[in-house]
Amino acid sequence: MFPRLVEVETPALIIREEVALRNIDRFQRHCDDNGLKLRPHVKTHKCVHFAKAQIAAGATGITCQKIGEAEAMADGGIDDILIAYNILGDGKLGRLRALAERMKALTVVADNDVVVDGLSKTFETASRPLSVLVECDTGGHRCGVQSPERAIALSRRISALPGMRFGGLMTYPAIGGQHDVLDFMTLAKAGIEECGIACSEVSSGGSPDMWHARSHGGTITEYRAGTYIFNDRSLVERATCAWEDCAGRVVATVVSVPSEGRAIIDAGSKILTTDLLGLEGFGHVVGHPQARIAGLNEEHGTILCGPDDRFEVGEQVNIVPNHICVVINMLDNAWLERKTGGMSVLTIDARGKLC
Amino acid sequence: MFPRLVEVETPALIIREEVALRNIDRFQRHCDDNGLKLRPHVKTHKCVHFAKAQIAAGATGITCQKIGEAEAMADGGIDDILIAYNILGDGKLGRLRALAERMKALTVVADNDVVVDGLSKTFETASRPLSVLVECDTGGHRCGVQSPERAIALSRRISALPGMRFGGLMTYPAIGGQHDVLDFMTLAKAGIEECGIACSEVSSGGSPDMWHARSHGGTITEYRAGTYIFNDRSLVERATCAWEDCAGRVVATVVSVPSEGRAIIDAGSKILTTDLLGLEGFGHVVGHPQARIAGLNEEHGTILCGPDDRFEVGEQVNIVPNHICVVINMLDNAWLERKTGGMSVLTIDARGKLC
Repeated sequence: MFPRLVEVETPALIIREEVALRNIDRFQRHCDDNGLKLRPHVKTHKCVHFAKAQIAAGATGITCQKIGEAEAMADGGIDDILIAYNILGDGKLGRLRALAERMKALTVVADNDVVVDGLSKTFETASRPLSVLVECDTGGHRCGVQSPERAIALSRRISALPGMRFGGLMTYPAIGGQHDVLDFMTLAKAGIEECGIACSEVSSGGSPDMWHARSHGGTITEYRAGTYIFNDRSLVERATCAWEDCAGRVVATVVSVPSEGRAIIDAGSKILTTDLLGLEGFGHVVGHPQARIAGLNEEHGTILCGPDDRFEVGEQVNIVPNHICVVINMLDNAWLERKTGGMSVLTIDARGKLC
Repeated sequence: MFPRLVEVETPALIIREEVALRNIDRFQRHCDDNGLKLRPHVKTHKCVHFAKAQIAAGATGITCQKIGEAEAMADGGIDDILIAYNILGDGKLGRLRALAERMKALTVVADNDVVVDGLSKTFETASRPLSVLVECDTGGHRCGVQSPERAIALSRRISALPGMRFGGLMTYPAIGGQHDVLDFMTLAKAGIEECGIACSEVSSGGSPDMWHARSHGGTITEYRAGTYIFNDRSLVERATCAWEDCAGRVVATVVSVPSEGRAIIDAGSKILTTDLLGLEGFGHVVGHPQARIAGLNEEHGTILCGPDDRFEVGEQVNIVPNHICVVINMLDNAWLERKTGGMSVLTIDARGKLC
């Protein structure tokens, strides 16, 4: 599946461009065929390079989670961004306004009055109103208003206050919760429109359920997915993709085989992270389906071998990580295995942008 | 315990210098009183600033895990470093030799012939031999030779080959395994000395058991500890330190209170990490002992409230992380709350140095 690489110091993350581009095209086609705009979440790659590739393939814009990510993407020339987060605090609101002024389109979300009031106060003297979506909790139990009634009330507040434009509704569904999304959004949208307020966008998302994404006769207008570009072990285990659709692998070196049945690699939690996402073991060792990455310290990974596994000191192993998004965030740089052959450095432009 | 801060954009890590310096002094005194050299592991802070403070307080040098960390510390002026890792591969061996040439003292470890032979080949033409310790597995089940006999054999190989100097023994014990260390090291050291080879250093370590560190009549010469400088929730739960000895806390903002009993903060796995270290919940919310950080996404933390907890949107919370070392590694910068008052930026010099 993966060629052996000797020129890269380990541990390192290698992204296969060909696979990533194929993933981009495939899901873009699904959205096109199903009447959905695609607004990829850049949290998975955090690279201007791939954000541009997604837009070139037909994406309507991108999604970020924090202002710092959006700033990094704007610096790279991306001009249509949804920041899917409640923005609070004078420092961040000031940065948000400065960012809006240099963008073609900037949208944020809100799920409560404090956030809405802060946005209004910040943008009431701006040259253009800020587009604000109401975040709805359709069962994901993270942020979001808890009922269509609350969505309607918050939409009215956004419409009534200066500095903002009500842009529609947004949700991050629970896995398998596309039906709940439809029920909630249909009610909320109808109620908002009954108030004489246009509800132009209804944005849903999530990579695990991406192949079930539908517009449902225009109720859902936009889909946000992140992980689909690279995929990972968690999406393989959910049958969302196949191993050959995984564009990223961590290359590690076996540094010790202290006893039979146990090999230590130089990839620990500083690259693989301790995210399990409900799985057993900290990644899939390519070509060794019986091997289990049973434990991680920061700089060590412990592989417990299956009966047919023999690892040797100095040998390289390829690992498909459980969760690719968090691996990317550990790294200032990864390697890009070019479609045309050869390797180049991939700068993770928005790594560690927490604020 | 912690003052409210409004000038820092959240999420952020704040280190209280006074507490860190007190922790440094306290454990240095313990080592001094017990006939042990202290060689702090810089993985916890990754800052030249604190490495220098540790050396100023009496540390014999520092410990790093990877060459990149050691390079960053050497760039900052630290000149006595143990890299407690098997170094393999032409690229890394070349960097190791270049690093050795600009240091007063550089030591590495090895637990197998492949590593020893690579070090010998690299250093046989160097101006000074490289000091190499044999890593012993005394029950921690990570790297290390499995028996005193193997330690003796590997010591003989190191002594016989060009380019190296056998420096002694090293182990990373299991928690509570200080007695196993003593048994293993006593046997190995005696056997090595019977071969006419000097075994000058015997290095043990680990923050959880640090207050039990003893030289045992000179058998153990050196102790390596990392977390002790900042401490964290895991060490409080192990009764190694008290809450007031925790120098680092993550400051987060409540961005949503979507329903009664649930608050969402802007600190997720991108700062707190998913390291549990056997604990329940992803950190300790200061002043809210009944609150539980029950779940993390990359940019969201979900707090489940206790009966007496009321969180408000916009409110700041302080969190003592489960594992401070991995939090530091997420950040290019933290904030240093100065002993003299005021805050300054703390650059994490060796963040993300994986190779």
